[in-house]
Amino acid sequence: MLVLTQGDPAGIGPEITVKAWQALRESGPRFVFLGAPELLAEKAPIQVVATMAEVEPVFPTAIPVLPLTLSTPAVAGHPDSRNARSVIDSIARAVALVLAGDATAVVTNPISKEVVQKTGFAHPGHTSYLAELCGVPGQDVMMLAGPSLRVVPVTVHVALRKAIDQLSTELIIKTAHTVAKGLIRDFGLSSPRIAVAGLNPHAGENGLMGTEEQEIILPAIQHLQQEGLKITGPYPPDTLFTAQARSQYDVALCMYHDQGLIPLKTLDMAEGVNVTLGLPIIRTSPDHGTAFDIAGAGKADPSSLLAALRLAHQLSENRKNAA
Amino acid sequence: MLVLTQGDPAGIGPEITVKAWQALRESGPRFVFLGAPELLAEKAPIQVVATMAEVEPVFPTAIPVLPLTLSTPAVAGHPDSRNARSVIDSIARAVALVLAGDATAVVTNPISKEVVQKTGFAHPGHTSYLAELCGVPGQDVMMLAGPSLRVVPVTVHVALRKAIDQLSTELIIKTAHTVAKGLIRDFGLSSPRIAVAGLNPHAGENGLMGTEEQEIILPAIQHLQQEGLKITGPYPPDTLFTAQARSQYDVALCMYHDQGLIPLKTLDMAEGVNVTLGLPIIRTSPDHGTAFDIAGAGKADPSSLLAALRLAHQLSENRKNAA
Repeated sequence: MLVLTQGDPAGIGPEITVKAWQALRESGPRFVFLGAPELLAEKAPIQVVATMAEVEPVFPTAIPVLPLTLSTPAVAGHPDSRNARSVIDSIARAVALVLAGDATAVVTNPISKEVVQKTGFAHPGHTSYLAELCGVPGQDVMMLAGPSLRVVPVTVHVALRKAIDQLSTELIIKTAHTVAKGLIRDFGLSSPRIAVAGLNPHAGENGLMGTEEQEIILPAIQHLQQEGLKITGPYPPDTLFTAQARSQYDVALCMYHDQGLIPLKTLDMAEGVNVTLGLPIIRTSPDHGTAFDIAGAGKADPSSLLAALRLAHQLSENRKNAA
Repeated sequence: MLVLTQGDPAGIGPEITVKAWQALRESGPRFVFLGAPELLAEKAPIQVVATMAEVEPVFPTAIPVLPLTLSTPAVAGHPDSRNARSVIDSIARAVALVLAGDATAVVTNPISKEVVQKTGFAHPGHTSYLAELCGVPGQDVMMLAGPSLRVVPVTVHVALRKAIDQLSTELIIKTAHTVAKGLIRDFGLSSPRIAVAGLNPHAGENGLMGTEEQEIILPAIQHLQQEGLKITGPYPPDTLFTAQARSQYDVALCMYHDQGLIPLKTLDMAEGVNVTLGLPIIRTSPDHGTAFDIAGAGKADPSSLLAALRLAHQLSENRKNAA
């Protein structure tokens, strides 16, 4: 059983939750929504439940809801930091349910960093908070997985200039360890092939356009190869995402956010899923934001949330079977 | 009539030239090869010509060649800087032919920066040399054009860290001027729509992840809008290249090399064409390098050179019709 968090109540989360339930009510995978019931109740039948045991039989006929209370009524498209508490509580309770063994995985609806940070929430986003809740702060690694491509940016939500500053051999090694472990444990890949992108145009072209490849990236790859990992690179970034190149690896390790997310979204916009590796729990989320600009208009696309729910279920099954 | 330069004699240039001629000999567009005849003579019938007037009738039965002399025999896959002179001469003579009105456009075969730079060639690549030959140093702008997408990186062949340093409001304005002029004059777009990418993840997310959007990019866009250009942004880079996003613009102005080249090559690997804007002449080239690793093996793909020849012809026709 999956737990789906509320996300920002003024975003598209409630709408895509209803659409996802409509698509999955008969086939599954099944989930419980952990949030304010009124966010869904106008759009679909819901059933408030008190325990996880009640969820399973409810799902085909109504959206099971573990209820949370909002501080102020939510207005689609108009985020209100007074409701930030419910956003954060939903995440914390969802993680607790999985850690307790009452649910198999957490799927998170989109939140707004700006909204939650106004209340003193110190994390740059979901994933570092999840790592803290799981007792493994700093171990979270973001992977984006689509039908065509999996990417892991080594540096994430920081200015590009700062991302370059953050890049280190140690960080690449640590990230690759987490990625390899995650792909082996949850994705059923016994010996994942990892391709590492360079940082600079043409991967620096032998130092003509930057030295990070030789000084930072290559030493990490060599270290990881000596440990026995199937890892290669650094490759020129611009040719690493062609169909031919993609057939040669299971995941691309990217040096900065857009190096990985540009090809991922260009190829798999609607169906990309954000997977957090490095946690004891399984967590996925749709690969988009709160979309306040279209919230309430009924035109939000649930494809990425559907893909996130399906992938969370599949990873749960893989982990169960491997255990 | 197009002029095709020799490129590095040890690269795949000669092979793709022969394959392109085989594909175009009946349909055109027609071209003359400006290089050492022996590079082609083993693989296809050639006809050495002395003037451009002889080219036209020869083309259906042999590759017309304006001959250059190599300093040492070329060995495929083994670049030799002793032949750099012929590489550079071919470019210079091709430009002279177009400037003189004897040819309509230059298409260049790939060269190796490392090879030519060993002989004291001070340019980072083709385009700045072409600008110098045309008497407009520093005015060259690289555009990559494929069937799905056109991109112009504002900064080009420099380390990523240096690219960020080079970014300025003035550079963006100057580049946009060149792009708009080129698209209007040669691409038949009367009012081109230019989309500008941000530099940082999520285009900085209101300053949370970098300030270049607000301090450098947005002022350029506002300035250009006031001039009447159809220019918008800065957009989050990772969602700027989806099919939906691409339908909204004619060219994406990118802040660094891989921001533009990753989506271009991911979408249009085989058929991307490099177009130099900002020159008085029309110049295109295939969007790949010398590929020394496969030179001589007979497996080089001529698609990009074919696309470059066809686009050069089309741009020449557009310019002729507009004149």
